[in-house]
Parts: sequence; C-alpha cells; structure tokens
Amino acid sequence: MGKILRVNLAIGKISEEFPDDETLKLYLGGAGLATKYLIDEVPKGIDPLGPENKLIFMTGPLTVTPSPSTGRYSVVAKSPLTGIWGQANSAGFWGRDLKRSGFDGVIFEGISSKPVYLVTEDGKAELRDAGHLWGKNTSDTTKAIREELGEKFNVACIGIGGENLVKYAAVMNDCDEPNWGRAAGRCGMGAVMGSKKVKAIASKGNAKIEVANPDEYKAEAKQRYDWVNQSLLKMTLEVFGTATMLDLVQVKGGLPTRNWQTGIFEGAEKINGEAINETILTKRKPCFACPIACGRLSEIKEGKYKSKGEGPEFEALGTFGSMCGIDNLEAITLAHFICNEYGIDIISAGNTIGFSMECYEKGILTKEDTGGLELNFGDADLIVDIVPKIGKREGIGDLLAEGTRNMANKLGNDSIKFAMQVKGLELPCYDSRAAKITGLAYATAPRGGDHMAAWIEGPAFLSMPFMLIEDADVGDPLQEIPEKTYILKDLEDGFGVFDAIGGCKFMGIVLSADDWASLISKLFGYDFTAADFRKTGERLINLTRIYNLREGLTRADDTLPARLLEEPMPEGPAKGQTVNLDPLLDAYYEFRGWDKNGIPTKEKLKELGLDWAIDIIY
Amino acid sequence: MGKILRVNLAIGKISEEFPDDETLKLYLGGAGLATKYLIDEVPKGIDPLGPENKLIFMTGPLTVTPSPSTGRYSVVAKSPLTGIWGQANSAGFWGRDLKRSGFDGVIFEGISSKPVYLVTEDGKAELRDAGHLWGKNTSDTTKAIREELGEKFNVACIGIGGENLVKYAAVMNDCDEPNWGRAAGRCGMGAVMGSKKVKAIASKGNAKIEVANPDEYKAEAKQRYDWVNQSLLKMTLEVFGTATMLDLVQVKGGLPTRNWQTGIFEGAEKINGEAINETILTKRKPCFACPIACGRLSEIKEGKYKSKGEGPEFEALGTFGSMCGIDNLEAITLAHFICNEYGIDIISAGNTIGFSMECYEKGILTKEDTGGLELNFGDADLIVDIVPKIGKREGIGDLLAEGTRNMANKLGNDSIKFAMQVKGLELPCYDSRAAKITGLAYATAPRGGDHMAAWIEGPAFLSMPFMLIEDADVGDPLQEIPEKTYILKDLEDGFGVFDAIGGCKFMGIVLSADDWASLISKLFGYDFTAADFRKTGERLINLTRIYNLREGLTRADDTLPARLLEEPMPEGPAKGQTVNLDPLLDAYYEFRGWDKNGIPTKEKLKELGLDWAIDIIY
Repeated sequence: MGKILRVNLAIGKISEEFPDDETLKLYLGGAGLATKYLIDEVPKGIDPLGPENKLIFMTGPLTVTPSPSTGRYSVVAKSPLTGIWGQANSAGFWGRDLKRSGFDGVIFEGISSKPVYLVTEDGKAELRDAGHLWGKNTSDTTKAIREELGEKFNVACIGIGGENLVKYAAVMNDCDEPNWGRAAGRCGMGAVMGSKKVKAIASKGNAKIEVANPDEYKAEAKQRYDWVNQSLLKMTLEVFGTATMLDLVQVKGGLPTRNWQTGIFEGAEKINGEAINETILTKRKPCFACPIACGRLSEIKEGKYKSKGEGPEFEALGTFGSMCGIDNLEAITLAHFICNEYGIDIISAGNTIGFSMECYEKGILTKEDTGGLELNFGDADLIVDIVPKIGKREGIGDLLAEGTRNMANKLGNDSIKFAMQVKGLELPCYDSRAAKITGLAYATAPRGGDHMAAWIEGPAFLSMPFMLIEDADVGDPLQEIPEKTYILKDLEDGFGVFDAIGGCKFMGIVLSADDWASLISKLFGYDFTAADFRKTGERLINLTRIYNLREGLTRADDTLPARLLEEPMPEGPAKGQTVNLDPLLDAYYEFRGWDKNGIPTKEKLKELGLDWAIDIIY
Repeated sequence: MGKILRVNLAIGKISEEFPDDETLKLYLGGAGLATKYLIDEVPKGIDPLGPENKLIFMTGPLTVTPSPSTGRYSVVAKSPLTGIWGQANSAGFWGRDLKRSGFDGVIFEGISSKPVYLVTEDGKAELRDAGHLWGKNTSDTTKAIREELGEKFNVACIGIGGENLVKYAAVMNDCDEPNWGRAAGRCGMGAVMGSKKVKAIASKGNAKIEVANPDEYKAEAKQRYDWVNQSLLKMTLEVFGTATMLDLVQVKGGLPTRNWQTGIFEGAEKINGEAINETILTKRKPCFACPIACGRLSEIKEGKYKSKGEGPEFEALGTFGSMCGIDNLEAITLAHFICNEYGIDIISAGNTIGFSMECYEKGILTKEDTGGLELNFGDADLIVDIVPKIGKREGIGDLLAEGTRNMANKLGNDSIKFAMQVKGLELPCYDSRAAKITGLAYATAPRGGDHMAAWIEGPAFLSMPFMLIEDADVGDPLQEIPEKTYILKDLEDGFGVFDAIGGCKFMGIVLSADDWASLISKLFGYDFTAADFRKTGERLINLTRIYNLREGLTRADDTLPARLLEEPMPEGPAKGQTVNLDPLLDAYYEFRGWDKNGIPTKEKLKELGLDWAIDIIY
C-alpha cells in the first residue's frame, strides 16, 4: 500500500506520491486514507461540484490478496448531495484491477476542460480524450474502452447521470455486459466525477502486492476464506442474495412502504428472494475473493420489461418496490438495470420517486409541475420511465435529480417532514420505528442517512449476532435503550476499518477483530492487535466527524426526518412507535467520548493520535 | 411447573407429588429437575436395566407457552450404554401434550411384570395392559393407541429396539404416520423403558400453564418468536434443514468418513441439503411453537427403497452416509426411517455399523461372525438390511446392538482405538481433528460423546456467532487454544438451562441470556437475571458431574478415541492434525472451578448451592 496517483485535470499533469509510513499506519487505506487527504487538501466550504473539490479513489491494503471479500474500493469527496463528507464504495473486480495496474489510489483535482478518461496500466498512467464516450451509458462506455485498449482492461465509469450532475449519481464498475454493474452508489460521487469531466478509469496490470510475511499471510487468508465459505451466512446469502433482508424487515413491520407511510407492504411476497429465484434469476455472482456470491444476474425473458442485467439488490426491491407501492418484480428489476446504465444510486432514486409520489398525492406536486405525468403509487411503468428522465434531467426529472432534501426545500408545504433523508442522504429500506437503534445509526452516520457505517440492521432487524464485536445483543428493538448504544459505536469502529481495508461488511458476521488484526499484522509486518484494530476504527470514525464539524455540522444535524420522530407507525408489529432520539444520542456521544454537542473532546482526539484536529474543530 | 407423576411399576401404583419451590428454583425442570431426582433416588452402581434404575420424563417450565421452540421433553436415567448419566430429549408435540394432560413429568420406578402403557389425560393417569402392543413398531403402536383412546392422544413410545434392550434404543414420539417420528435418541433411554416393560405414554388434555405475569409474558414470548422468525438462521434451516451442516463440515475436512478414517467424503454432494431438496423432500415440518421448521418429510417414490417418512437429519446423512462410505441418499433415508420405526438412535446405529465395517475390513470381524454377511463400506443395501437385525438382535445384529465400546471390548485386537465413542456414547458427525475445541467438548460432555451439551460445533465448524454468550470466537479451529476453553464452559452453562426449560439449542444463536432470563422471570414471577441464568446453567452442569463422579468417573474418562488423539487426519484442510487434549482439559477444568482431576471444588459446590453434594463426591 502506498503508491498514489495525483491527476491535475486542469493542466493534465499526472504525478505519483507515497504517503509516509506513519500515515499509512494511522489511516490504513481506502476511505480512511482518502479522508485524511480530503481534510488536508480540500478547504472548508467549497462547492462540491467546483474545481476545489477533489475526487479520491482508494483501494485497501488487503485488496488483491486472498483475504475473503476485501476487494472494495472507496471514492471520497465532498458530497454534492449532502454538503458533508461523501463516500461510496463498491466491490466487483475493478478495485483489484486498479491495484494490479500499479496504483493504490487516484486523486483527481481541478476540472478538465474536456471529457477525459484515465488509463492505468503496469505502473503507468495517462489521460485520454473521452469526447466519444461522453453521453454513453455505463456498459457502452466500458465496451468502447475495451475495444480501444483491449479486453483485459476493467473500467470504473460514470453514466449519463454523472455527466448531468444528478446529485446522487453513482460511480459504476464491472459493466462488462449490458445492465451489469456494481455501484459505488451513495453521496453523488458520480456527479463529482462528472463535474470534473472524468468519464472513466480503465485499469489493467499484474502488479504484485508486497506482503511482509507471505506464507503465513496466505495460509491465514485461505483459512479465513474457508471459514466464510463454511458459514451459515453464506448458505443464506448465496441462495437469496441481499433480498434475504426483505422478508425479515417486512415481518418486523419495518419495510418502508409508500414513502414510509407504513412499514408493511402487502405485495412483499411478490418481490422477495424466493420470487426472484423462481422467476428471473439466471446466475449467482461473487465479487473478487469472495466465497459468498450474493450478486444476482437476472433476465426478464419477454413482455414490456424484457431485459437482462445485474440485480435486483434488496435496496432496489425496497426503494422502487415497497417505497413506491409497486409489487411488479419485473418493473423494479428493469428500473434497477436502468440505474446501472445511467449510473444512479438506487436508494436515493427510489426514495426520491416515492417522495414525489407522496407530494403528488398531497397536491404539492401537480400535473403542471410534472409536465402531465401522473405520479401515482403503484404505477409500475412510471419507475421504468422516470429513471431515464432523472438521468437526463429531462422535465420533472430535473427536479428529482436534486434529491429529496433539495426538492422539499423548493416545494415547501412541510414536505421536508416526509423527505426521508438525513443530512441530505436518502435513507435505506429499514424503518427505524421498528428497530429504534437503527434511528440512532442513521442520525449519526458520517455520510448521512446511511445503513452501512455500522450495519446495525444485522442485529436489530435480522437478529444476527456478529463475531466482529463482543456483544451485538441490542435487546428489544422497539425500546430506546441508551445503555445499548455502545453496540452502535463498536460496530461503527469495527466496520470503519473495513472501509479502510476494502472489506465487505458481511464478513463481520463470521470473522472477528482478532482475525482481521492478525491478517493486517502479517500483511504489514508490524504488531497489530485486536485492540489496535478497534482503536484504528475509532480514529477513522472521528476523522469523518472532524471533516463534518469543519463543514459546520452540529448536534441538530444528527437527527431523523420528522415522520420517524413524530408520526406513529400506523400498523403491524411496530404499531404506534416513533423514535425518541435524544436519550440515545446523549448516551452514544458519551460512549464516543464526544461532548453534549457531538464534538470529540480534546482528550479523545489526543488519545486517537488526532491532535492535529484540535485546531480545526476548536 | 411442579406436578409430577410417580409410577411404581412393580405394584402398579400411581401417585402425584410436588417438588418444593426451592428445588424448582434451583433446577427449573427438564433434565435439571430430573437429574436431581436421579441423584436423590437412584443409588450408585446399580444396573441400568434393573429395577433400581428410574426412568424420568420431564417437560420444561416454558413448555406449552408461546416462547419459541421450548417444547422439548427430557428423559433421564442411568444409561445402559454408558453406565453414567443418561439423558435424551426430543421436540415435536408430545412434550406439549404430556404437559397439557396435567403433568409436568413422570417418574417410572421398578419393573412391570407385563408390558404396560401409561395414559395421562386431564389430570388423571392410569396404567394399561400393552400386551397387544408389544412387538409393534412405533407408528403401529401410536396408531393402535389412538384407535383405542381417540385421535387426540399423542404418544411417546418405544419400538422393537427398546423392547429388545438395544443399548442405544430411543424413545420416539409423534409417530402419527408410518416412519414419522421425533427421537429422544441418545444414551439408550428406550432400552431402560423396555427393561421396565413400558411400551408407551399416551397423553391428552387442556391444562393451562400458570404464568405469573401472563400479559407481559405473552407479549415478550411473541416478540422473541418473531425475532427467530425474522432471522437469517431461520432462512437457512428452513430451506436445508439440519442437512445444512453437511457441506459446512465437509468443506472443513471434518466429515467422518469410513468410520473416521478420513474427514472428506467424495460422495458428499449426493447426500447434502440441496440433494434432498431436489429429490426426496416433500414437506418442511416445525415442532411445537417453533418458527423454523427444520424437520423434513421425504418420500422415495419408486425402486427398492420406496418409502416415506420423517427425515433425513444431518446425523443420519453422516452416520449412515459418510461413516459407512455410502452416497445413496435413498438408502440412507430409508435406514433413517427404519430407525424411526424400531426406535433406535441414528448416531449410535450408524457409528456402530461403520465400526463393524472397519472391523470387517481389518479381519477382526469375519464372515463366520456375521453369519455370511459381508460388511463392506459403501454397500447401500446393507444399512437397510442390518438396522432391523439390530432392532431384533438377530444374528450379527445382537452384537451390534451393544454399541461400539462393548463390541470393541469383546472383539479386542486394539479395535477400541477406532471405536468412535466417548464414555460409551458414539460420537456425532464432526471430526474433532478439524476443530479441536469440539474434542474437548466431547471429552467432557456429561453424557459422553455428545455434541448437544454445548453445540460448540456452531462456532467451531460453522463459524456461527451466538447471541446466547458474550464471545463465541474460538479462534483458529485447528489450534488447541487453552485460553478459549471458557467458550465451551459458557455454552454448556447457557445450554444447560435450555435442557432444563425444554429449549431448542438453535434458539441460542438468536436469543440472549437476557431474553431467556426475562421470560423465566415473568413466567415464575420472581427476579431472574442473565447472571442467574448463567449460574443456573453452571449448577446443572455440575449436577451431572456429581452424578458421574459418584458412578466412579475420573479424569481418565474425559478423553477421546485413540484415532482422534493419535492418528493424523490423512487429507484435506485438517491434514496431519490430531487432538492434543490435555492442555485444553487443564484450562477447562480451571475455568469450571474444578480441580486437576476434574472434581468440582468444595467452594464451587457451595457457590452453586450444591453443598449437599460435598459428602457425595469427597
């Protein structure tokens, strides 16, 4: 780990640099190292889509090694959707290929005068003109680049969504076939890429990864791989994919339905994992070095939704499905495929459409606004038609491309109360009224309404214990239990390291902090204990907090949409529930060593080796 | 909880009695309470098949309540197979029905002069003549009794195996249809029942269970049920049943094959969960109050193995399958069905046949001994033919009915080294050379070579975390790690309570000590914390130790077959491994508060409220 490419887009200059050992030790790689760059180099208050923002791609130190499912790359920048720390990450195979091309990460700075794409190959890098790629969707972009450079190149790119600065545009990778693709979906990293006029990164190479104790590392990595391969976790996720979650969330009464007006979707059985298996599933697809294969390839063989591609993931089933009141699996799946092609985040897209439907239902949006479109819950054709409009910012799509918070600010009429976002980031498909601690997680997650910082939905919604932390027993999910909020902290800390090393969070169910610490230790050749692992994770979570505080975030931002705080769930197991956030927030801050305003104490910063940040936030 | 039926078989006298509150508080019910009776009433050194042994059926305090999967009953007696503490337990529905008939348990004492069966109904009980039932298999027995008494009676009974004192005969229940049945399989409780000439217990009734805080209890039980119903655990076990384990154990190189000569079975894919689903599975069947439905109903529609019934469970796939070198799923399944009908434990039966095959291979058993039968590994017809011989003690079956330890003692030639048993109880289908801590578990489990005391196979073989205990991370399963043996203690303690309350151990993955303690507290109406839960479990484990020490057990008995200690695994992920038991044993004893000889210290006994046992074991 350590060779970083710096690409000044304004002048087309490419250089290499090497973070010092101390920096690598403190921040490891991935989102950790990238965030340190962001804080150091990007001033407070800049325009996320302007030249001062930087777009940082970073792989993890374990990437390309045989450790199970550690091939994720992170993209970090100030988010145009939230205005705070932006990060997205994705697996598939491209992270591996960037690293094999000889680079651990890429920092894009400035804005190019014309569309370009970056080629990295065997330790060399160049910018190429992308004029002919601009306007292409993700699979055509990938195909065109591979025709130019050769089949062995793998590509991360933006689609038309990123070009058009859709606020929640994704960076896509592995779009080898039509509608395929893994998404670094969240926070609009694709829009930042589009603003810089970078269409793609194409990578290829055979670089070897330096491992301090190669034999020990290899044996241990193989064993850990085997453990995951031998787990009950694998058996479920391989069979049902992430759609596994749908039944489990529905039965708890927490499946957001018709823009979160209720938590039970009457059509859930038509869009669950079993329904996928019985109808459209064609193949189960693993990411690099992962034994699980939770990815799905699907095909709709006939009819108006005829198509094939990658997905559907649980979050698409929820956002395009229950959130929009749609039980047509084929339409949901095609909407997902279209997001893959346009390079658009499915969570934000589906939420925004669901929000628009409720606005339409309430007369806040009218046919006049929509150019004649009726935005009715349950209209399966609509989701398929509207995603391209968002991608192209065409008609009403231009408004929807702004995300729910911006829309609500524009539409007024108290619509912000049911704009289902935190800090501007649309929420995932788990209603916190059915598992209170998830509300705390969304209120405090560094990138906004995000379920992946802690993945506390595992224990809270799926009754899933974790090897990663000592105690994942959240107790009664319908109670606010301040004493249990340390579980959120512990999961965030542990998974904070995952975002730095490029790990998939499903691995946290099966492998422990000891397991990961030992792998990291053998890779780097220095002592790294489970305590170091946890401390590093805590450092990384505080690092993102520092960034956000500098941007002006306060305790008041650590909150939830009014619907979750004030509107009782109308039916089901969580009937009558709202989230009482403050007691949880107080306790969580205390476990974190943050003051009542959510600011890390000086002592905590010193303890974590973040002394340099004292001047920034005090 | 508290109404116990005492049946003196010698004189046909039936009486009722009520344990005092203090006893119920200390030992709860199920195997806990039954073991206290056994220690109090059955003297040291008696013949397990003689009149002095007692056979105790006991339900748990949570049975008939809506708490998830707490309908198991225990059968406790001195074991004719092991000569120490004998216990078996089973779910299905009969435990519920015994309790609804007005009784929490039944103590059989003495020996009846002729076959009888017990009827319990609406708080009344009577012994009836069973002359016409003697010689019948389990489903015919059940059918005949229901014809006599009415369809609503449910039956626990023995088959021909129990009548013929097969040392590992089972007590069966819910044999409503041909070849159906749940088994209280282990330790030969069916033989004890046969020795007493008790063919069956038939039960029916509508007794209500007294609950101290009924509304709170009901709400909490329902919520816990929902949590299990919403878990990843359920999704796997419902789809694949206990056969889920087979792939997971095989891939770790620990699937006992050809009498444990290796840990990889080349035919595993022909007999795994997927193979069952694709060929013979007809229905998934839950036990009382369980959301999971891991039970299987299967049918072989044609050919020489044509049959239908309940199963196959993982342990049959392993013992009749890999242990006998047989990859014919239909033959394995039919052998399982026949065990159900004869009332024979599948684990001991399959192991014994596998052992016989190796003896035959080595010339220790010859055609002369077998009456012309060839006992070859891989002979699918043989397992189907030989189980009835065991049940009838016909020909070579008479020898096999004694179990592996007795056989080895008789056959000599060092065959004891590969008689795969601990303390006389045949081992389950997990080879400890592939997960060392399981070797410690089998060496120390109260009933001998038993995987259910701790179910440490969960974390050790399946990389499965548990909500029940704080830390289930066993580390590298191929290492002997003395510091990790507290995990075995913690699991034994937690699951010790499960055996007392009638709980299914799969629930320990999803529900915590807090969850169970709270349910118990609301049921009984007194304070019962998670600490009380753990302390109670520890008391119950020590209780069984007291029984075994009184019978003369020493540290030397806490060991494994020589094959596991001395013969390196020949291939696969565990290649070259043996189990180095002593360091694990030392550490475990210390965590337990037992001395170097495995004897609980006086301090420990006092701490657990077992002062009365000091005189017994010192």
